[in-house]
Amino acid sequence: MSDTGYKRLTRGRARAERIASRTAKVQPNPAPPGPAGGQYQPLTDADVQKIVATAFHILATIGMGDVPAVLAEKATQCGATLTPEGRLLYPQSMVEDIIDGAAKSFMFYGRDSKHDIEVGGDRVYYGTGGAAVRTQDLDTGDYRESTLQDLYDFTRLADTRTNISWFTRCCIATDIHDIHDLDINTAYTLAAGTTKPVGTAFTLGSSVDPIIDMFDRVLGSTGKFAEKPFCKAHISPVISPLKYGDDAVEVTTACIKRRVPINAIIAAQSGATAPATLAGMLAQTTAETLAALIMVNVFERGYPMIFSNWPLVIDLRTGSFAGGSGEIALLNAGAAQISNWLGLPSGVASSMSDAKAVDAQMGAEKALTAVTTGLAGANMVYESSGMTASLLGASFEAFVIDNEMLSHAYRMIRGIEVNDETLAFDAIEQAVNGEGHFLGSMHTMDAMQRDHFYPELANRDDPRTWSDNGSVAIHQTANKIARDILTNHKPHYIDDVADAAIRQHYNILLPRQH
Amino acid sequence: MSDTGYKRLTRGRARAERIASRTAKVQPNPAPPGPAGGQYQPLTDADVQKIVATAFHILATIGMGDVPAVLAEKATQCGATLTPEGRLLYPQSMVEDIIDGAAKSFMFYGRDSKHDIEVGGDRVYYGTGGAAVRTQDLDTGDYRESTLQDLYDFTRLADTRTNISWFTRCCIATDIHDIHDLDINTAYTLAAGTTKPVGTAFTLGSSVDPIIDMFDRVLGSTGKFAEKPFCKAHISPVISPLKYGDDAVEVTTACIKRRVPINAIIAAQSGATAPATLAGMLAQTTAETLAALIMVNVFERGYPMIFSNWPLVIDLRTGSFAGGSGEIALLNAGAAQISNWLGLPSGVASSMSDAKAVDAQMGAEKALTAVTTGLAGANMVYESSGMTASLLGASFEAFVIDNEMLSHAYRMIRGIEVNDETLAFDAIEQAVNGEGHFLGSMHTMDAMQRDHFYPELANRDDPRTWSDNGSVAIHQTANKIARDILTNHKPHYIDDVADAAIRQHYNILLPRQH
Repeated sequence: MSDTGYKRLTRGRARAERIASRTAKVQPNPAPPGPAGGQYQPLTDADVQKIVATAFHILATIGMGDVPAVLAEKATQCGATLTPEGRLLYPQSMVEDIIDGAAKSFMFYGRDSKHDIEVGGDRVYYGTGGAAVRTQDLDTGDYRESTLQDLYDFTRLADTRTNISWFTRCCIATDIHDIHDLDINTAYTLAAGTTKPVGTAFTLGSSVDPIIDMFDRVLGSTGKFAEKPFCKAHISPVISPLKYGDDAVEVTTACIKRRVPINAIIAAQSGATAPATLAGMLAQTTAETLAALIMVNVFERGYPMIFSNWPLVIDLRTGSFAGGSGEIALLNAGAAQISNWLGLPSGVASSMSDAKAVDAQMGAEKALTAVTTGLAGANMVYESSGMTASLLGASFEAFVIDNEMLSHAYRMIRGIEVNDETLAFDAIEQAVNGEGHFLGSMHTMDAMQRDHFYPELANRDDPRTWSDNGSVAIHQTANKIARDILTNHKPHYIDDVADAAIRQHYNILLPRQH
Repeated sequence: MSDTGYKRLTRGRARAERIASRTAKVQPNPAPPGPAGGQYQPLTDADVQKIVATAFHILATIGMGDVPAVLAEKATQCGATLTPEGRLLYPQSMVEDIIDGAAKSFMFYGRDSKHDIEVGGDRVYYGTGGAAVRTQDLDTGDYRESTLQDLYDFTRLADTRTNISWFTRCCIATDIHDIHDLDINTAYTLAAGTTKPVGTAFTLGSSVDPIIDMFDRVLGSTGKFAEKPFCKAHISPVISPLKYGDDAVEVTTACIKRRVPINAIIAAQSGATAPATLAGMLAQTTAETLAALIMVNVFERGYPMIFSNWPLVIDLRTGSFAGGSGEIALLNAGAAQISNWLGLPSGVASSMSDAKAVDAQMGAEKALTAVTTGLAGANMVYESSGMTASLLGASFEAFVIDNEMLSHAYRMIRGIEVNDETLAFDAIEQAVNGEGHFLGSMHTMDAMQRDHFYPELANRDDPRTWSDNGSVAIHQTANKIARDILTNHKPHYIDDVADAAIRQHYNILLPRQH
């Protein structure tokens, strides 16, 4: 599989390349995004039901605190009750009714329709997330503060990588100090750097309207964004344990008004803001994600929302968040299984290494969490590329390496097709009675590119060749590839007229490219 | 679900250990070897049955070539037929009968009984395998030829690592040129360096008797080995596709005579000696592993044999073996599922990275294959520590890192216990109505060490601390740990009397330690 995404510079050129690749021998991708997951089930069905029953019980008897007045009003109309202490209790029948009416899948659009993805069912897609305040410098290997330029660089890197199905901003431009400017410029940079579906957080509810207005300008006219929303909002509507966040409702209603799909993230931390037992963690976070689902659905039943139950873990020796472990893989795989069992579009977090160096620790932590959450059938696996240092850091090298690792994950999720052709009885008989091997046979040639993924970064040389070629480690290979892409792929997917208009109305801090 | 299976030796001993761990302040291991796997099922049950049916069909109609005369005689007595072309056909009823009578589990003994493991059922253990001709030097990082000293060093390293449940020699002492001397000295070094269960290949059938005689001397008297065999034989009885190897029967009968458990390994290569389609690969290799099972069981029904179906993959671009990929993880997980479905003690291969550098490629390839084959329930996961360079190399640094990675794998396989205590409803209610968090609560403290694994090598510092401490990558940490162990742990688990006698009778090339 040759990843030619980074050559996609202009439409004319892309078309020419498409034609060329059709006439030439097209390499099929044996491990495309979107395969059906669920082969790995960390929980038995009975245990899923026990956890969900506990979540229902939590919502019915402990309920949610710090309830915004407008939500209390809407929710009590739907069957919730408000206790004298101000906690909102959701009876099980109400929660089940909300789940019944909730969006089970929705189309998440790219600005280029080839990037559209349908979220839900058993389809698995990897993409990014994160809010790294530090970026690993490509020159020094050290971490420094993340900038708007870094965000643009990560965005265009994502634009070229096959396995990043959407790009949620992975770092925070810490060189922008005004919060409104930060929201605007983050959104602008995403639109400039990729035509894939994107995502961002709206720090302020008041940022939603101006940003969607800007996106309408990018698309050419007012109301265009609402037709095919290409950006989703990451909101964190719950403060664990079991309280609503202050501005959750404000951002939610602003998003609904402008048709921005909502990614409602519960990011409780095991042992700190949720139980340290895995089952208890999942019971509470399932309850909290349901509380988010209720909040969205009482405003608009069936509104597109990703049920993002991201159970996080702290290292109880230090109290610091730690993202790369068997526990976090288990928890997020379990969360995916529970969300899918409820029939809701599931989002989880993976590939959150604690390593700073792009080393064997990083490779192992990312692979074990990414592969298992994908096999568990998570519809959207967040944080899956480039995140390092327990989500504090982002790395271009890691980004490039992760993309290739995800091909192995996709290959695994695709699974093993079993039919007469693949069972190969005839091919085996032929080999035994003929050449005595399978090399070069038609059956082998057909399977070679259809069924096998061939990595480009991973080194498969023998030790001597590897040594003769300079004993290169994969982060060095990735460093070169990242540099090549950043040197050659400088998209600006906002046309001149729109760009000029946007710059007139907004304080855009990213220089126009070219 | 707490699987304490690895302690399940005798009832009295288990009780004594429980009491001991209550009185001492033992840190419990939250991720011990031997958990129950099977949560990941790459194949549907229907697909498993199709693959097995094809394997039966292959054995009944294509059969096995190059049949040793003694095997042909025994097998035809059991219902097999020999074609005019000399191929041995096994009717399905005969194969099913062999499976019925085969050993379903057996005890694999350590010389120290705390290392005993029961192979079979749904218990998962990781251990080593491999025959690396090159070793990564701890000083230079480069690969050089493996020596007997390297083998001793790997053996004593394994002796200290919790997650290596047995040690099959992982490298070949290329400084020994005589094959008989190689067999003898390999076996001697294993016995000198560890009291864990061990494994080796007998290059010559004629090596079996002298080696078991030597082991008897190690144990103190003739016939001791046969009482609790602590070494298994790795044999490769099949030359793919579908032929018996020359000396397979000779080594097999020699092993049976001396009660050496047999690890019968099928290591066909997808696209070269087996179909390039995954289902076809599994059909053929299942047939071939069954052919090995038949070979062993016609000599002694129910003889302890590990059903080691290790489907390997070549990179069809170059024809070279490649061990780190989604395909190989899928195939070996599928092989484990099929072997377990047949009820046989399953062996697979994983953690076979193609990387030479101990880098992010290595970490990812090892983790994704190790975790998924374990979750698929393989009883014995081979090659799981230290192997590099597509099995051509072995690395002390990788060995140490892999051991820690396997704790994450074991933690995942252990799974999520769901009961009233772990569902934590009371703890949640208490946190919400009390402190507003879970830090320091009894519920949290109990879960902390019982349910969470805390890595020693993996770096979880923030980027600044990491940088202040020298920006260390995990292979550097592992290098130090490996050096420390090799400096301080110099066991010689053969007493002076036995050692002197052995040295009198055999050409022992490893210096006596101390």
